[in-house]
Amino acid sequence: MDRTVIGVDLGGTNLRTAIVNSDGVILDKRKEATQAVDGWMKVVARLIDNIKRQLEIGAQMGSKVFAVGVGAPGVILVDKGVVVKSPNFPDWNNLPLKAELEKALNIPVFIENDANAAALGEKWRGAGQNIRSMIHLTLGTGVGGGIILDNKIWHGADGMAGEIGHMTLIPDGRQCGCGNTGCLEMYASARGIVQSFREELEKQKLHTAEALKEVTSEKVYQAAREGDAVARRVMKDMGRMLGIGIASLINIFNPERVVIGGGVKDAWPLFIGATHEEIMKRAFQVPAERTEIVPSSLGDDAGMVGAAAVALEHQNARC
Amino acid sequence: MDRTVIGVDLGGTNLRTAIVNSDGVILDKRKEATQAVDGWMKVVARLIDNIKRQLEIGAQMGSKVFAVGVGAPGVILVDKGVVVKSPNFPDWNNLPLKAELEKALNIPVFIENDANAAALGEKWRGAGQNIRSMIHLTLGTGVGGGIILDNKIWHGADGMAGEIGHMTLIPDGRQCGCGNTGCLEMYASARGIVQSFREELEKQKLHTAEALKEVTSEKVYQAAREGDAVARRVMKDMGRMLGIGIASLINIFNPERVVIGGGVKDAWPLFIGATHEEIMKRAFQVPAERTEIVPSSLGDDAGMVGAAAVALEHQNARC
Repeated sequence: MDRTVIGVDLGGTNLRTAIVNSDGVILDKRKEATQAVDGWMKVVARLIDNIKRQLEIGAQMGSKVFAVGVGAPGVILVDKGVVVKSPNFPDWNNLPLKAELEKALNIPVFIENDANAAALGEKWRGAGQNIRSMIHLTLGTGVGGGIILDNKIWHGADGMAGEIGHMTLIPDGRQCGCGNTGCLEMYASARGIVQSFREELEKQKLHTAEALKEVTSEKVYQAAREGDAVARRVMKDMGRMLGIGIASLINIFNPERVVIGGGVKDAWPLFIGATHEEIMKRAFQVPAERTEIVPSSLGDDAGMVGAAAVALEHQNARC
Repeated sequence: MDRTVIGVDLGGTNLRTAIVNSDGVILDKRKEATQAVDGWMKVVARLIDNIKRQLEIGAQMGSKVFAVGVGAPGVILVDKGVVVKSPNFPDWNNLPLKAELEKALNIPVFIENDANAAALGEKWRGAGQNIRSMIHLTLGTGVGGGIILDNKIWHGADGMAGEIGHMTLIPDGRQCGCGNTGCLEMYASARGIVQSFREELEKQKLHTAEALKEVTSEKVYQAAREGDAVARRVMKDMGRMLGIGIASLINIFNPERVVIGGGVKDAWPLFIGATHEEIMKRAFQVPAERTEIVPSSLGDDAGMVGAAAVALEHQNARC
């Protein structure tokens, strides 16, 4: 009988679950809207419901599911499996997610931060294979980070390490939701791209209030691909800002690889040239030349595969 | 018979050697001018000469010296004991320092980067005791960095990790010797303080060319202590810049402690308030509150004690 685990990616928008075998292959997956606004009790019930259905499918497939790994957003006490707080779930305060799930499912459950889970997924089965150290950046609405050193996530003293999106890039720059100003996240994310494009439109007085509201990151990519000069400059500037941040990370970590995922990755050719340029200008030559900057390869599966890796690791069963 | 090692701190200015026992206690130490201008052959000969004299003293003291650890500035291939290149020794190119010393001394020799050695020294016997993760910053002429995670130096893929002095603080800021602009080192170092003070004098047109030349970091500290408003502002700005850098490091690493050494540390009360303020403003609250920011405690001995730790570690004999 195939030994498998369930990997869960609990996002603010989607709740994804998958049956994953010990080679990291997804045997079955499902997706449902998280509906975080329903509050923690309903979200946890939905989570349990989805995992149960996945367990049934596993049983039908003749595979023995022996653990569950969950990637959840926010501050996680990994050892205890507690979600301390989460930007995507405002009413989650010190929620003992591991205990709640184990009680309902009667199977070992392990919790990891979602950005770390995505990093582990890419490391195991995606763009981070065959190396020991990598920095994973998820360029989505914000910027998530995961640091893998000697094949392990660096969690830090409180499990809060890897908040690379909140390193300061421009000390007197844009106000970030975290309280800081000029965070990497305010420039090298979908939100940052939208803000930059809006600022450009406002400068040029080529807009209506309506037009400003309708800006999305996808529309900016599209405009840039079609040759729009403003959109192209915005994407290049975003790439430059990303490069400033990565150059600092290279000087700090001297990593083997930097893996870039998230929605913004789809605009890769529009920003990566400027990123490389900035890195070569700013980082020490030897580590700058050695660091591979590559796109993630698992897409939306990364979090589930990584969560599965966490579960397998705890059970010492990962290949 | 007491089992001991020799710890060497090979600096651009001074060459320090010490006999260190397995508790990290210095039993004897000596210091001599490095005279790097003499070229690599003479410096290595001087190094051998000093270690030999220290071995003799060890023999007289009845202690058995069984290994030598050397902290050397620059890019080091730790495994091979090769100094790839070094800003303080321009003619050192791929110098096989370990092999040269072992040939002359007939005793095992281990080489480590000097900033890492200082970090290890503070970790073992100084301000970094009883914790598992710390960032060590040496605020001297420049800014040296050492990263200790899970009780070990993080070397990176090429042994070049920890170049914290060269993280970008102000993307379009001061030109750094490394090629980048706006490095932490250009603001939070003795050199940075001198430059800031000179810029202030120039702005106020309260200077002669002679006066500008005579500015030293020690004179700025002294003036600040005596209440000089410009000097006080310069020191506060320096503290602020340091705080911006440390806040990013806290968000990235979530370390237990940040240890600050180097000559600038002597001006601690003049900058540390601004540093704390900036950290609390910029870093996430939980890790910001948990991270202790403390001055180093071993002073000029840190490098020797850390180099001794490297030698003992390789021989599995550290307490």
